[in-house]
Amino acid sequence: MTLLMLGPPERARAWLPIFDAAGEELVVGEDAVQDPSAITHLACWTPPADLGRYPNLKAVISTGAGVDQMPALPPGVALTRTLAPGIDAMVRDWVLMATLMLHRDMPRYLEQAALGEWRTHPPRPASAGRVGIMGLGRIGRAAAASLSSLGFDVAGWNRSGHPADNIEVYGHADLAAFLARTDLLICLLPLTNETRGLLGADVFALLPEGAALVHAGRGAQLDMEAMRSALDAGRLRAAMLDVTEPEPLPQSHWAWTDPRVVITPHTAAETDAVEGARHALAVIRATRDGTVIPGLVDKEQGY
Amino acid sequence: MTLLMLGPPERARAWLPIFDAAGEELVVGEDAVQDPSAITHLACWTPPADLGRYPNLKAVISTGAGVDQMPALPPGVALTRTLAPGIDAMVRDWVLMATLMLHRDMPRYLEQAALGEWRTHPPRPASAGRVGIMGLGRIGRAAAASLSSLGFDVAGWNRSGHPADNIEVYGHADLAAFLARTDLLICLLPLTNETRGLLGADVFALLPEGAALVHAGRGAQLDMEAMRSALDAGRLRAAMLDVTEPEPLPQSHWAWTDPRVVITPHTAAETDAVEGARHALAVIRATRDGTVIPGLVDKEQGY
Ligand SMILES: NC(=O)c1ccc[n+]([C@@H]2O[C@H](COP(=O)([O-])OP(=O)(O)OC[C@H]3O[C@@H](n4cnc5c(N)ncnc54)[C@H](OP(=O)(O)O)[C@@H]3O)[C@@H](O)[C@H]2O)c1
Ligand SMILES: NC(=O)c1ccc[n+]([C@@H]2O[C@H](COP(=O)([O-])OP(=O)(O)OC[C@H]3O[C@@H](n4cnc5c(N)ncnc54)[C@H](OP(=O)(O)O)[C@@H]3O)[C@@H](O)[C@H]2O)c1
Repeated sequence: MTLLMLGPPERARAWLPIFDAAGEELVVGEDAVQDPSAITHLACWTPPADLGRYPNLKAVISTGAGVDQMPALPPGVALTRTLAPGIDAMVRDWVLMATLMLHRDMPRYLEQAALGEWRTHPPRPASAGRVGIMGLGRIGRAAAASLSSLGFDVAGWNRSGHPADNIEVYGHADLAAFLARTDLLICLLPLTNETRGLLGADVFALLPEGAALVHAGRGAQLDMEAMRSALDAGRLRAAMLDVTEPEPLPQSHWAWTDPRVVITPHTAAETDAVEGARHALAVIRATRDGTVIPGLVDKEQGY
Repeated sequence: MTLLMLGPPERARAWLPIFDAAGEELVVGEDAVQDPSAITHLACWTPPADLGRYPNLKAVISTGAGVDQMPALPPGVALTRTLAPGIDAMVRDWVLMATLMLHRDMPRYLEQAALGEWRTHPPRPASAGRVGIMGLGRIGRAAAASLSSLGFDVAGWNRSGHPADNIEVYGHADLAAFLARTDLLICLLPLTNETRGLLGADVFALLPEGAALVHAGRGAQLDMEAMRSALDAGRLRAAMLDVTEPEPLPQSHWAWTDPRVVITPHTAAETDAVEGARHALAVIRATRDGTVIPGLVDKEQGY
């Protein structure tokens, strides 16, 4: 089996010794491919247009945690996303930071600081914050565990209604009830046909007055104009966004300087090259052994 | 035994039913004192000038977590500070937020956002952050536990060198070694003669290049001008302060608008009135039973 990797040279430098040590074949860049029929795996952010060139391709590995950037793949080619504990933990940390910043009124304090204004708003204990996490996958569950351990009142929402440790889980049909009990809404959903534009007027209208939004899923899930209306109407009091549509967010976009919105430039996590290489090796091993490919994506569902 | 409480009317409203239910005597405000010799306990932020008026006073209870605002008390009058789990947890949460904000480059991202600039700096995993906590009391230990559970490399510094769960502890004499291994310095010390001005040029010079400061102790522990020099020299890269000297920080102070410094107006915690009343009742009970008074302060050491 041979893996073709597309990506920046730093990544290639990290992967080569790891593949060498494991005794697996790695080809870096399409130009280096001598025998296209030898290529069984492709690791990339997006694949080249003509995948037909690789008749024996078995799996495409997204080098990110999501696969929403991937086009439809030929039947018979599996799609997987990189599972890396480091990504999950880094997004969890960003979410924890963002949730605490909103719960503890940082947007207001930052606005006051710019004016040199010393004015205290009563600090809230974590137990007074009803956190609602949309998406209880690897990252959502990690965030839930950390926020629960601080004393936040955490619930989650997923597609299956499948339970998660120690938190109340609302299934897909119970979105309204989930939102009604949520002061701090956290989005950690994959981008799919079902979740595109989901964070819009309908969802915001179901939140209690003065709720706050933490968004670390994908930009296209959020309708920024609907968010602005919800902020103006007081339905939302503030938001922390790590993802926007488009990315980069244009310099002239209103959200950059709205004191109720804090934006970071899609920096919640970055795949560690070593973890990425290990994941790719695990995919190759699973293909060879005929076991379930780690990170396998259900192409119908899109995640 | 009778407790005299000085403080805002909301506090009195919360304390009265709790004292009633416990069958203990509570007098609110000096004007309401009919028999000064009946007063055995005084709960206040600072006591009245003439404590000689209360010949049977056994203990003064600071309504805050610190006692640095207290004058010297007559011999024979014990000094205690309010122990409230809610305070500890709220300060821990603020410290966690502040540490994550510095570790994840929020001051830089906030500065960029004001300019509409989308530029990513590599996110750091928690394990790459060497946290050093000055003061391993109730709050320092709570912060250490939460930060350790996220994967930060946590060490602490205290006066006694007394060990703490699961973290490396440096004693008073090992300050230099403690600082040399610390990227994220957190101050949770009580204000005493020994800690006044401690966060100054000498301490900053012992930190590695580009360290960051989280300060939630007391304002008078930090020399703001020394901090500014350390920021200018690159020794410090950023700071989050919940406490300043003086408080309120004057509107014209440079630190409000320095992008490397984020200030909140002493809002890490607020004593919950119910927890305060429970603590006061526990002090009265301990006095009656002759057991150790909770929160008892060593007057020599000042904490
Ligand atoms: N900002 C960043 O830097 C960054 C970094 C990494 C990841 N992310 C984002 O985080 C997302 C989540 O990552 P993950 O690893 O935790 O994903 P995951 O393990 O695949 O979990 C996805 C979760 O979303 C739920 N879900 C999917 N579609 C849904 C729908 N239509 N309605 C309700 N729930 C739905 C799933 O429900 P079931 O459990 O019922 O299947 C599952 O709980 C990624 O897809 C990516 O968009 C962002
Ligand atoms: N920003 C806010 O809103 C806020 C709210 C609450 C409290 N605070 C601050 O947080 C402080 C700590 O509270 P706490 O309840 O955790 O206090 P604590 O339980 O009394 O613990 C104090 C810690 O500081 C250490 N220490 C004292 N003097 C020292 C010295 N000279 N050198 C080295 N270590 C020294 C002690 O060492 P040993 O263990 O060896 O005795 C102990 O570990 C309070 O005093 C207050 O200033 C701030």
